[in-house]
Amino acid sequence: MRATVMYGAGDVRVENVPDARLIKPTDALLVVTRAAICGSDLWPYKKMENSETGRRMGHEFIGIVEAVGADVRKIKVGDLVAAPFAWSDGTCIFCQEGLHTSCLHGGFWGGTELDGGQGEAVRVPQADGTLVPLPVGRDHALMPSLLTLTDVMATGHHAAVSARVGPGKSVAVVGGGAVGLCGVIAARRLGAEQIILLDRHADRITLAKEFGATDIVSERGEEAIVRVRELTKGLGVHSVLECVGYAESTRTALSIARPGGAVGRVGVPQDELMPAALPSFFNNVSISGGPAPARAYIEELLPDVLEGRIEPGRVFDRVARLNEVPDGYRAMNEREAIKVMIEF
Amino acid sequence: MRATVMYGAGDVRVENVPDARLIKPTDALLVVTRAAICGSDLWPYKKMENSETGRRMGHEFIGIVEAVGADVRKIKVGDLVAAPFAWSDGTCIFCQEGLHTSCLHGGFWGGTELDGGQGEAVRVPQADGTLVPLPVGRDHALMPSLLTLTDVMATGHHAAVSARVGPGKSVAVVGGGAVGLCGVIAARRLGAEQIILLDRHADRITLAKEFGATDIVSERGEEAIVRVRELTKGLGVHSVLECVGYAESTRTALSIARPGGAVGRVGVPQDELMPAALPSFFNNVSISGGPAPARAYIEELLPDVLEGRIEPGRVFDRVARLNEVPDGYRAMNEREAIKVMIEF
Repeated sequence: MRATVMYGAGDVRVENVPDARLIKPTDALLVVTRAAICGSDLWPYKKMENSETGRRMGHEFIGIVEAVGADVRKIKVGDLVAAPFAWSDGTCIFCQEGLHTSCLHGGFWGGTELDGGQGEAVRVPQADGTLVPLPVGRDHALMPSLLTLTDVMATGHHAAVSARVGPGKSVAVVGGGAVGLCGVIAARRLGAEQIILLDRHADRITLAKEFGATDIVSERGEEAIVRVRELTKGLGVHSVLECVGYAESTRTALSIARPGGAVGRVGVPQDELMPAALPSFFNNVSISGGPAPARAYIEELLPDVLEGRIEPGRVFDRVARLNEVPDGYRAMNEREAIKVMIEF
Repeated sequence: MRATVMYGAGDVRVENVPDARLIKPTDALLVVTRAAICGSDLWPYKKMENSETGRRMGHEFIGIVEAVGADVRKIKVGDLVAAPFAWSDGTCIFCQEGLHTSCLHGGFWGGTELDGGQGEAVRVPQADGTLVPLPVGRDHALMPSLLTLTDVMATGHHAAVSARVGPGKSVAVVGGGAVGLCGVIAARRLGAEQIILLDRHADRITLAKEFGATDIVSERGEEAIVRVRELTKGLGVHSVLECVGYAESTRTALSIARPGGAVGRVGVPQDELMPAALPSFFNNVSISGGPAPARAYIEELLPDVLEGRIEPGRVFDRVARLNEVPDGYRAMNEREAIKVMIEF
């Protein structure tokens, strides 16, 4: 079969790999119908060291179940299913607590051991725990929005939940990439009154306003902090969604939260350290977040997608075929595209 | 009047200073009856640069109101009152939210502008918002426990609340100083099932066990992390109370929280940075805390002290007169004493 393999920074190839197949009785075999390139795929794209064996890519995908192992009970051959970006058994203590990304018997797609979603087929471990059947056909018009539930929309939602967004709250979203844009959707969905996006790219800003952003701050660093304070009577915002992952953006996020506020961070940290004391400690600003338990959120968000109340699929501004995936990475890395959807 | 002034590392003096007096109509003048030396007083004691003017010390105190300004309504001359470690107006948006340490018109005792509690008298700004009348006489047997409500017990409670301690939870307390010991009391009071103290000093461990600690971990660094995991079925604890403030203790705290757990930190950070990614981000461990809003907690904790359900005053293992305060600092710094109470 054909699949996407990364061999080093800037070196993404689509090539022949061994066919995906059932190995364990709890596996399902999925033929991928839609996948995406994630902002987090760009981190290795920027700095992965060269590798002989390469690394299978892709963790956001939807597909049709072609076969299931003997112990699979819930998932049936022919189901159209969404695969969250982490696989999980659905039964361990952390899955029961809704934190499927910490499943004791789960893991993440791709790498050197498992198939990735940016390929024709995927062996899905723990199929019953992992996969979520979708009640639509494979080429339904809502497919882009449904695809976002596997990661980017769930991640924006996780940022908002971690930042304790609620009715009447003031919110800032740091970074208007696809996750940040979904963060705007999530903040509005949860009832935020003011939603300030910190970004400077026209295409993202336009979309953010349509999603519900009330203010845009295009300054950076200290100037951005001053500007957010001006917009919030000098207090800062109740909730900050950190959707980037750099030390600088984290510092900004911590600085624009008001005393007693909360930062929800979902941008994978690119630096080992973050500020410990100022400004978070003395202002009692809480810092939460991490990999989103997409599996837990899909069921909550699915009705809103199916009924058209949220349209996160609009973050996809480019569609590629599998052989165009390397150019999709390039386009996202150069900010020519916000997010690329792959159609099979 | 006589008061404690710090002039540099290790240089604490009790000397004559200008008499405290009413300045603003919202002030009260307090004659101090009890005060304490705080673990946080030891940070400048360890590393304060030499100063010509010195810095007035003390932020945990109880006293009798000797005079009030024209605008003071609730506090009366003759009241025995507790003064939380931050003064606050009680009416601003943050006071209304229970975060009095971020009061828009408040501040902290001592320094170069205000009186400190380790002295004979104190001018109390925002008296109506700040002071809490106590329903007992000035030499009541519960005075040590009541004094802890001004900071150390409130701070231990804040660590526990920030770490989301609740019934049935597993808890670790990093650091068995006076704050950590009060953290043990707070964790037990909030219903924790397992309370692991990380400390290696016999006097503290004895007291912690009496306060409700179920396990003691005396190892440090990686070994401590391994030991806590052994005590928690390999998972880590739901709640960690960080009661030290060093980068190393913070790293330990973040490492022993289970996925989805919470760290409540109240040790004033002594290092600018803390770990950003591992282990907190990938485990969705939240980090909260800061200066405790003691003013908000006093009313909640006071009945438990008055009715003897908690005995945080037992953290005082030495009593000093005002002229013995410099030796009290020395004794706490050399760990000869856990915490020193000053009687006037």
